[in-house]
Amino acid sequence: MRKTLKELAGLIQGSIKGNEDIIIEGTAKAEEAKRGEITFAVSKKFLDKARNGQASAVIVPLEIKNFPKPIIRTKNPRLAFAQVLELFTPQIQRFSGIHPTALIGKDVKLGKDVTLGPYVVVGDRVRIGDNVYLSSGVYLGNKVVIGKDSFIHPRVTILDDAVIGEQVIIHSGTVIGVDGFGFVKKEDGSYHKIPQVGRVVIGNEVEIGANVAIDRATTGETRIGSGCKIDNLVHIAHNVTLGKNVAIVALAGISGSSTLEDGVILAGQAGVTEHVTIGSNTIVAAKAGVTKDTGSGLFVSGFPARLHSKQKRAKAIANRLPRLVKRIRELEKKVAE
Amino acid sequence: MRKTLKELAGLIQGSIKGNEDIIIEGTAKAEEAKRGEITFAVSKKFLDKARNGQASAVIVPLEIKNFPKPIIRTKNPRLAFAQVLELFTPQIQRFSGIHPTALIGKDVKLGKDVTLGPYVVVGDRVRIGDNVYLSSGVYLGNKVVIGKDSFIHPRVTILDDAVIGEQVIIHSGTVIGVDGFGFVKKEDGSYHKIPQVGRVVIGNEVEIGANVAIDRATTGETRIGSGCKIDNLVHIAHNVTLGKNVAIVALAGISGSSTLEDGVILAGQAGVTEHVTIGSNTIVAAKAGVTKDTGSGLFVSGFPARLHSKQKRAKAIANRLPRLVKRIRELEKKVAE
Amino acid sequence: MRKTLKELAGLIQGSIKGNEDIIIEGTAKAEEAKRGEITFAVSKKFLDKARNGQASAVIVPLEIKNFPKPIIRTKNPRLAFAQVLELFTPQIQRFSGIHPTALIGKDVKLGKDVTLGPYVVVGDRVRIGDNVYLSSGVYLGNKVVIGKDSFIHPRVTILDDAVIGEQVIIHSGTVIGVDGFGFVKKEDGSYHKIPQVGRVVIGNEVEIGANVAIDRATTGETRIGSGCKIDNLVHIAHNVTLGKNVAIVALAGISGSSTLEDGVILAGQAGVTEHVTIGSNTIVAAKAGVTKDTGSGLFVSGFPARLHSKQKRAKAIANRLPRLVKRIRELEKKVAE
Repeated sequence: MRKTLKELAGLIQGSIKGNEDIIIEGTAKAEEAKRGEITFAVSKKFLDKARNGQASAVIVPLEIKNFPKPIIRTKNPRLAFAQVLELFTPQIQRFSGIHPTALIGKDVKLGKDVTLGPYVVVGDRVRIGDNVYLSSGVYLGNKVVIGKDSFIHPRVTILDDAVIGEQVIIHSGTVIGVDGFGFVKKEDGSYHKIPQVGRVVIGNEVEIGANVAIDRATTGETRIGSGCKIDNLVHIAHNVTLGKNVAIVALAGISGSSTLEDGVILAGQAGVTEHVTIGSNTIVAAKAGVTKDTGSGLFVSGFPARLHSKQKRAKAIANRLPRLVKRIRELEKKVAE
Repeated sequence: MRKTLKELAGLIQGSIKGNEDIIIEGTAKAEEAKRGEITFAVSKKFLDKARNGQASAVIVPLEIKNFPKPIIRTKNPRLAFAQVLELFTPQIQRFSGIHPTALIGKDVKLGKDVTLGPYVVVGDRVRIGDNVYLSSGVYLGNKVVIGKDSFIHPRVTILDDAVIGEQVIIHSGTVIGVDGFGFVKKEDGSYHKIPQVGRVVIGNEVEIGANVAIDRATTGETRIGSGCKIDNLVHIAHNVTLGKNVAIVALAGISGSSTLEDGVILAGQAGVTEHVTIGSNTIVAAKAGVTKDTGSGLFVSGFPARLHSKQKRAKAIANRLPRLVKRIRELEKKVAE
Repeated sequence: MRKTLKELAGLIQGSIKGNEDIIIEGTAKAEEAKRGEITFAVSKKFLDKARNGQASAVIVPLEIKNFPKPIIRTKNPRLAFAQVLELFTPQIQRFSGIHPTALIGKDVKLGKDVTLGPYVVVGDRVRIGDNVYLSSGVYLGNKVVIGKDSFIHPRVTILDDAVIGEQVIIHSGTVIGVDGFGFVKKEDGSYHKIPQVGRVVIGNEVEIGANVAIDRATTGETRIGSGCKIDNLVHIAHNVTLGKNVAIVALAGISGSSTLEDGVILAGQAGVTEHVTIGSNTIVAAKAGVTKDTGSGLFVSGFPARLHSKQKRAKAIANRLPRLVKRIRELEKKVAE
């Protein structure tokens, strides 16, 4: 595909500084871009890389007025780059239609243009919306519902009763609707299983990474709000509620019945204990452990998690400890004298 | 299903206070229960929720003498609730029998009423007990043994030589019998693989979550004792030994050749290094890292893990650091005078 | 299999002290070895176990001159033991050839002696080298390349465009080529997906554990160097670069665009943030979090990670805090007087 810089500027609603007729044939990161490709740069570090690299043009923020190469100035260069990348991404040729090895249960309703890949297994009373793609080896239990335009990658397991929204992407190996980890300890030290009879309900435009595990509710629902983005190897326990646009990074885990309100970000390897609520737009740092309710719009870190600013102050004082020890020693000397 | 409160009290061996003839048609959490449903409450918080909610009756501990709704008083309300929940859980209709797409190896012995779902693959010389259920896409390697009444969810992989007990539940995506992570570093910096030729042996009434990985032993056995409960995304390395009724919460990991004695609880994201033993009934807090042998009946936290009481004292003193700094400054002033 | 001690010594290039004609029929750990078996021991602890156990012979380091049982003295007893273990490991009988249920796409090139197990799915334009083994249920996307002598365990998913080297082992449930976790936040708080159009390139003699997730690059390549060993449940994000012989232990995670140079060891549950480089042969302790570039040949721990020696000193001082508090109190008393 070949586009002029002018055409790209139109697509991303940016303004050009430099030759608007140059031809762009691809996109790449600043340090990897070759002649004929466009890149983007926001920070000084990447502006330098773009300047010194071979890219023919650069998407930059509005505050950049001058640059030794043709630029497109735009409000959100990252978003603009994503859009240009989409434009240059070749459409992938995939199998489409119902593969002869796909097994379909009783009373299943399939929308228009649904694909069921090889060795897909669909349970009874399942409803699948228009244009849904189930890749090879996907398993759907009974009464599962999948909204239109969703894409389920190979070997995803969606167990009984789960409801998946529209335009949802689920990556390989993920399991939706696992029994929650619920047991009662008996007097002899053994555990009695609590039946897990609730379900998982996932909103629209959710993306879930690979080898994630999301538990069904004990009773009621485990809820993943619309727009949530979940990375690889994340654990979400029974009866958890995620609001809208919650982002959860790899290897994080959320214990039973906790709530993450709209816009919360849970960074990598962070954890949340049971029955707590994290207020909207709060950011939980990597490896932090949230043990109690947390307000909105905060940045918390550490375990137990508290305000990152306090955490940093505590660390700073801890780092001064060797000097404190010296000061005490000197005081002791003087007082002894 | 409809039951009188009296019938339920009989089932859970509790005593009723209030109208024993009311009809119960379901169960739910205190805040979600509707008229006609029964809930349970142990703590003040949930007793309040039950009082203010719509539940028609509540299962409570013996110490509750009066309540504005009909109650069933019982020694272990959680266990009682689990039993009532079981009663009200509708039997799920599932495929049963040997699916025509299931592939069975040579010299396989199947018990009575065994189900092999679609696309199940069973290796050679496998033995499967009565009433075992292998869901869609389960893979069993050669010489695997599965005891009666076990339920294996879709897409579980059980590799050669593993022995699984009776009434075991294994959730989707889990892999049993992975090669352990064993290598010898050579002089040129590369690693030489140590053959992993042992096996995994799992006792009775064990439940294992989704996307768990359990390694086979290098030689000998990796052992999971009867009654163990393992949550999602847990890693268990080669030659680990779990006693009876050990509980391991999500995203925890146990390194090679370590032992967790009976009744140990390893909380979420905790870790255990190689060749250590954790004494019976010790609780390891979330995110803790156990680096040396630990006695029985303790509560340990932090990394390296030590007694939680000591850990808390250390944290308390650390929190007083800013005040200590002030006190030193004042002393310095006075001494200077 | 039966071998004389002399034959084993020849294999591992060691020298015998004791009766070289005794017959060895197997190998086991020091405490589990039975009469007729050989074990190995390096540390005093295991030398004692070997002395008191039933093993008929022991592989030991050169510095051991005398021992009450026949020994083979060798430079690297671990490596020697691995070689003896290989010798005694019976060849496993497996299905070989192209199973009738294996589905093969268009324009696929298969080398000699390739096995495609039951329910394997191979996409279009795939190239598979000689003697590659794809176990049951493996999925290969379009244009995947697999080098000769590689072994892919059941239910591994290798997505479009991935390139896998020679003699690579990938364990069950692992997913290669997942979309990276890349989104742009929009003004309304929702996320816009950045297309992930790069690929994964894996070198030779790499081993990857079970239920691992490796992301494809946004553009360009996620690279796993030759000789890397990756344990179970590890997360590797888009555009990560691993040098040669990097070892990553279970439940560790590496964020986008970071580099681990040759010989780095990342211990269990450790994490690495985005865009950092860890110098060659540096060891990152368990649970550590690396947040900035790190030199070569270091041992770092903690979060944020720093030199382990500094970390330990800081911990030691922190442990002395209660005594510091006492010293301050005494000073205050004296000064008040």
